[in-house]
Amino acid sequence: MREINKILVANRGEIALRVMRTIREMGMKCVAVYSEPDKNAPHVKYADEAYCLGPGPSNKSYLLGERIIEGCLQLNVDAIHPGYGFLSENATFARQVADANLIFIGPSPHSISIMGDKLAAKNAVSTYKIPMVPGTDQAILDIKEAKEKAASIGYPILIKASAGGGGKGMRIVKGEEEFEEQMKRAVSEAKSAFGNGAVFIEKYITSPKHIEIQVLADQHGNYVHLFERECSVQRRHQKVIEEAPSSVVSPSMREAMGTAAIDVAKACNYCGAGTVEFIVDEKLNFYFLEMNTRLQVEHPVTEMITGKDLVREQILIAEGQPLGFEQQDLHIRGHAIETRVYAEDPSNNFLPDIGTLSTYQLPQGPGIRVDDGFQEGMEIPIYYDPMIAKLVTYDEDRHKAIQKMIRAIDGFRITGISTTLPFARFVMLHPAFQSGKFDTNFVENHFTPDQLKQEFSEDELEILATIGASLIPAAQQNPSSMHNTSPNTTSKWTNRRRNG
Amino acid sequence: MREINKILVANRGEIALRVMRTIREMGMKCVAVYSEPDKNAPHVKYADEAYCLGPGPSNKSYLLGERIIEGCLQLNVDAIHPGYGFLSENATFARQVADANLIFIGPSPHSISIMGDKLAAKNAVSTYKIPMVPGTDQAILDIKEAKEKAASIGYPILIKASAGGGGKGMRIVKGEEEFEEQMKRAVSEAKSAFGNGAVFIEKYITSPKHIEIQVLADQHGNYVHLFERECSVQRRHQKVIEEAPSSVVSPSMREAMGTAAIDVAKACNYCGAGTVEFIVDEKLNFYFLEMNTRLQVEHPVTEMITGKDLVREQILIAEGQPLGFEQQDLHIRGHAIETRVYAEDPSNNFLPDIGTLSTYQLPQGPGIRVDDGFQEGMEIPIYYDPMIAKLVTYDEDRHKAIQKMIRAIDGFRITGISTTLPFARFVMLHPAFQSGKFDTNFVENHFTPDQLKQEFSEDELEILATIGASLIPAAQQNPSSMHNTSPNTTSKWTNRRRNG
Repeated sequence: MREINKILVANRGEIALRVMRTIREMGMKCVAVYSEPDKNAPHVKYADEAYCLGPGPSNKSYLLGERIIEGCLQLNVDAIHPGYGFLSENATFARQVADANLIFIGPSPHSISIMGDKLAAKNAVSTYKIPMVPGTDQAILDIKEAKEKAASIGYPILIKASAGGGGKGMRIVKGEEEFEEQMKRAVSEAKSAFGNGAVFIEKYITSPKHIEIQVLADQHGNYVHLFERECSVQRRHQKVIEEAPSSVVSPSMREAMGTAAIDVAKACNYCGAGTVEFIVDEKLNFYFLEMNTRLQVEHPVTEMITGKDLVREQILIAEGQPLGFEQQDLHIRGHAIETRVYAEDPSNNFLPDIGTLSTYQLPQGPGIRVDDGFQEGMEIPIYYDPMIAKLVTYDEDRHKAIQKMIRAIDGFRITGISTTLPFARFVMLHPAFQSGKFDTNFVENHFTPDQLKQEFSEDELEILATIGASLIPAAQQNPSSMHNTSPNTTSKWTNRRRNG
Repeated sequence: MREINKILVANRGEIALRVMRTIREMGMKCVAVYSEPDKNAPHVKYADEAYCLGPGPSNKSYLLGERIIEGCLQLNVDAIHPGYGFLSENATFARQVADANLIFIGPSPHSISIMGDKLAAKNAVSTYKIPMVPGTDQAILDIKEAKEKAASIGYPILIKASAGGGGKGMRIVKGEEEFEEQMKRAVSEAKSAFGNGAVFIEKYITSPKHIEIQVLADQHGNYVHLFERECSVQRRHQKVIEEAPSSVVSPSMREAMGTAAIDVAKACNYCGAGTVEFIVDEKLNFYFLEMNTRLQVEHPVTEMITGKDLVREQILIAEGQPLGFEQQDLHIRGHAIETRVYAEDPSNNFLPDIGTLSTYQLPQGPGIRVDDGFQEGMEIPIYYDPMIAKLVTYDEDRHKAIQKMIRAIDGFRITGISTTLPFARFVMLHPAFQSGKFDTNFVENHFTPDQLKQEFSEDELEILATIGASLIPAAQQNPSSMHNTSPNTTSKWTNRRRNG
């Protein structure tokens, strides 16, 4: 047990602010770090103290582990919260932090490095009965043997980089004739992206859902899971809309996935908050994909349905406190959806947009949470992830959470920059999303940029709702005048309010 | 069963907006009404349509029941939501609405009138075993008999106007020698305030807590309660901080109060959302005070801990739908606190303040809800209740909800006008509030305006926390410079994070 009184948050934007809010509530002090272009950012203003790291590019600021540790020592910091991205899954940094006699709010360097290497992770969990996608558990050394293995698994197969992530070094192979060619490309991509050309083979699951389990583990050997998050709506292999619980996970499947996730955590002696990712096929078989050894972008949906503050739990665990609850104390209540608001143009292939937030007004009201790191008038820096905000809605059930999300999107006023909000609205109103029958190919299967230009079929027109009217001022001169300039009217689905 | 598709919200400010948000989520249309000075108010902009009622004063606008009904007929409105205040407890208006073949989203005129008259309410509930404060159940006609009754109850006693509310026509009588004098005053006040001089006698409870129970009743005879709200922190007999659950109510007391509240609702054939108010003495005996036949200002704390949207329930009940849940489905989760942000100067006897909201920035983050009806740059109109916003925090337990409230208050930036926020901060940090040992005399017992002027004892200085620093930009020039200009440091209580 070592008491933490001051925490440096080695991150920026929404996650830095979100972490600091909890630090404040726990009566601790928080230190911000910042790059020069971020010097007026809200996370810097919010902190008790702030420490400049250097110029804009991440490798000259937010990725400078040693400089961050230097700052901690100067400012008498007890612990570092890495957020997500940047140094959060860097085992070397975690080691350096410990060596400097500081607390790293996250798992051990050992856990990070095992789970950072897909093959090492496969091997670590092999003593547990974790469902794995059929495939090789070693790096491919021999092309001939690999082809035989691929044939026995059955095409299509996937070649994946062991050190990979974010879809890099990953290749789909539809038949044996493509094998060698795709393998070469995968190795070369893996080498250039990760400095490590090791690749392996897995069965390619054509219509997968991405469902992950949140786990918490303390330093005393206690493990719990906080149920699942469904993150299948993605663009460019990156999540954009997440929800909890998933509409396809039954209580027994939840229990099985939760147990598997805890086993994965045990397999690497995990400590802290972590996420075990699974892919789920059409028959609802689930397979271990990887473990993220940090706080997840989409952690708020879990907080909403469980009532737990995950950052608070991370900090308490880092202090050496035992978990204050057991599995049986945890219950799902209600439904939460998160929409990531990216500075991207969904009608132009989600191309990142830069510019100034000329208007930036948040939606409000019961069941709406916005985690962000921007203010009206601010510029979106070009150096970092283009996420502006996370918009989360929470209600009694999925139907109501979707309705609330539509209202929230319509109440979120951003001008000066394109965002993914119109895409999120499209998703909320789409029958595939509403029915829960969607997979990671949602964008490819259902979305074309034209669909945001209001060229709707009559049926779709009916689906799109009144809700747009929220942005239009009511007529104020003539007492009886109306303003119903929204092109949309409420659908039966949107309109019906008590759905079982 | 009669489907509602368009609702007129016969109110203004935060409650009009709050009601409309739910209407939107239910896929219905909403119509705003407004007085001339409110024509640019957010509730007007938010609505699908808007209807002007007249000049500023309430009796020339928001109280014009007939004009409101006229508007409904013009705009094809199905139902009227009255909010709170204004026409919400006006049985005549409820009757006129029904006569115009419109749905009044509230109880029947019969229920409203019984509960609007304290003696009628006492008589109505007399067939149930509801604990009542010892007193007379008829209007006082004979001074001599009344004095005898008062003597048998034991001084101090309270003389109350049957038609009363808000402390008007209410007199404390400490001994028999004052009886006649105080009685005369009470009758005369009651006559001038309510046009009805009927008064009665009750035992005066010296250190009462105000605890109320939320009930819901549908048109099919189903009743549930949604637990209690503690509203003891008041100024001028009006609530200013509320929370749910109460820290003094045990599960068995909760059940007894819930049953009593449902009995009160049954006694007047109640339908819709209503609140049964009790006073609780030092020994935790509870006594029926009155029933409010409308949505309560402080309803959000109940929504937070139960996950139910009370406005949605009101609308569904008004449509004739049966309640979608039973008592056993309802559970308390977590703790919620509401701070009413009034345009008042707490360092000057809570005198209403008027002016312009030059700065108006809301606090953000997990577990914070703000219901308001203002925007930066707006003026606070002089005609109406000076409440600007309701700030609600929600967390796992009371301690954490208090910590979150302090953070939220410090993140709420209002300039141009005095508000009750500094008072709320004082309350959050006060040992009496933190321990739950407070009653409706909190302000009289613990608060002097000087206490907001930072003339703290050393001990209090320690209690007041770092948290003020949230408003102060971090030093950005010198990497190692600090800014800790807040006069406050974190108390042990404020500082300790896991309290059982």
